[in-house]
Amino acid sequence: MNREVAIGIDIGGTNTAFGLVDREGNCLVDGSIPTAGYAEPAAYVAAVCTQLKDILLKHPDITLRGIGIGAPNGNYYNGTIEFAPNLRWQGVIPIAELFQKHFPHLVKVTNDANAAAIGEMVYGGAKGMRDFIVITLGTGLGSGIVANGGLIYGYDGFAGELGHTIVDPNGRQCGCGRRGCLETYASAPGIKRTVFALLADSSAESKMRSISFDDLTAAQISQFAREGDVIAREAFEYTGRVLGVKLADAIAHTSPEAIFLFGGLANAGELIFEPTRRSMEEHVLKIYQNKVKLLPSGLRDKNVAVLGASALLWNELDGKD
Amino acid sequence: MNREVAIGIDIGGTNTAFGLVDREGNCLVDGSIPTAGYAEPAAYVAAVCTQLKDILLKHPDITLRGIGIGAPNGNYYNGTIEFAPNLRWQGVIPIAELFQKHFPHLVKVTNDANAAAIGEMVYGGAKGMRDFIVITLGTGLGSGIVANGGLIYGYDGFAGELGHTIVDPNGRQCGCGRRGCLETYASAPGIKRTVFALLADSSAESKMRSISFDDLTAAQISQFAREGDVIAREAFEYTGRVLGVKLADAIAHTSPEAIFLFGGLANAGELIFEPTRRSMEEHVLKIYQNKVKLLPSGLRDKNVAVLGASALLWNELDGKD
Repeated sequence: MNREVAIGIDIGGTNTAFGLVDREGNCLVDGSIPTAGYAEPAAYVAAVCTQLKDILLKHPDITLRGIGIGAPNGNYYNGTIEFAPNLRWQGVIPIAELFQKHFPHLVKVTNDANAAAIGEMVYGGAKGMRDFIVITLGTGLGSGIVANGGLIYGYDGFAGELGHTIVDPNGRQCGCGRRGCLETYASAPGIKRTVFALLADSSAESKMRSISFDDLTAAQISQFAREGDVIAREAFEYTGRVLGVKLADAIAHTSPEAIFLFGGLANAGELIFEPTRRSMEEHVLKIYQNKVKLLPSGLRDKNVAVLGASALLWNELDGKD
Repeated sequence: MNREVAIGIDIGGTNTAFGLVDREGNCLVDGSIPTAGYAEPAAYVAAVCTQLKDILLKHPDITLRGIGIGAPNGNYYNGTIEFAPNLRWQGVIPIAELFQKHFPHLVKVTNDANAAAIGEMVYGGAKGMRDFIVITLGTGLGSGIVANGGLIYGYDGFAGELGHTIVDPNGRQCGCGRRGCLETYASAPGIKRTVFALLADSSAESKMRSISFDDLTAAQISQFAREGDVIAREAFEYTGRVLGVKLADAIAHTSPEAIFLFGGLANAGELIFEPTRRSMEEHVLKIYQNKVKLLPSGLRDKNVAVLGASALLWNELDGKD
């Protein structure tokens, strides 16, 4: 049986994961390679492609349709990675062009949050939806916005940076050089900052008083909250409140059918969903009330980022077939 | 010579303006009728259509292609006006259907800010742009967002309510029932509220100290600012600062090529453009800096709202021809 696949490649600062994914979102073969081990992008791409070609040779029944890449600061229009702070490679990397030296197929690039949004649309909970937003809550806050059935890339290819919308122009210092960005509140490091602000502000007992800033993780905060830790619970409440206000703003922009929360902090489940939903409904304009679903990702694979990257390719082919 | 026209109808709370507009945005004939004079929508539509038919009979050289309507709370998907607070007619008005009883042509409806955005795209400064935002600064703050070449209507048809994004959840009381909405700061009444807050806060001399809240207009504030009134100038500075922060947020959503400011308060020119541009550039994420043009409307007609409404029809025909 001949199966058509797209290669999905998720380029992270430390590791690159890849997989061969069919149209239904089944990952047939996967693998990985250390991104950080390559000083030069060309050598890195050659190493990835060697592995991919080996896999394809072992599976003559598979027909390759193309390659989708999710990368930090991936630019859809240019097929480039541009000034990605977490990668060793500086400046503008023509990543699609580098891959096309090894594969004559269609190669498309976008950033990881956009790839997650397209993955949700092609295989996940957003199937059939034309207007939705995916929010990734991890080390930062990423987002992909779909309107009229298409991902919004914007004029420069960098649309959808909701992590850098402003909660408070005089608020927390952000890695981007400004203050008060949403991701300084709603992300894994954001909730940790909230915990430390609450430890300073409140006199409540908390097991987290014995853990240093460097050591505390978002997963621990979830665990403590489940055990009833007052500070941990208040931290989720605060995070949800801030995120809910900015999601209300996002709704006023594109009026989505649903907003999906995705990634590490979203795994805390109702701890984060409940206060976020409550704040979103409280702060949203009346005409949008009780309309917008706040949902967990519908993608159920150990490597959703690879799925998302492969979906970019299918989405491209479906738009042009 | 046979000319093709679209009828553009701008339904306002007090008056309705209409016109026959060709593809280049020339308004060939226009007219108006008092909206508030009709208790029943059907009688109102009949009166408008009687006038339109008279005009068409007098111009046998004109071929009508359809009708575009801009109306408060106009819903593009349903062809309805839904719960418009400024109209006499309550509930959901099937306005497109009512017009189609008189004209068998295509009839499309949207709200006034969306119509302004499409007008800008079809005839104005956004010709050829695929990603831009139009902000109307009048009694309220309206907006129309275009991405990937199409207006964003959203899941429910009500996308693009930037006037109701939140500047401060504990801020000024808004007509929508919430607090701190952008339009309570950046609109004609918004800048008046700012003047009164500044008159309370500062001891500076100002001619506006002798004018009541009810009597002061945004046009007067512009005039006083031009004459060097310190409070009036500070009010424009503050308005621009607040608007700039929220435009920075809007850029992080859809990354537009340009943002157009339109309507009464935008007529203040650099008084409002300069501080808004400065604040927008100060608060925007670095990757967007010095990329997004802040522009006045490119529409130059005494009735831009009629142009916008007619553009809705041309845009629809062009998408489907």
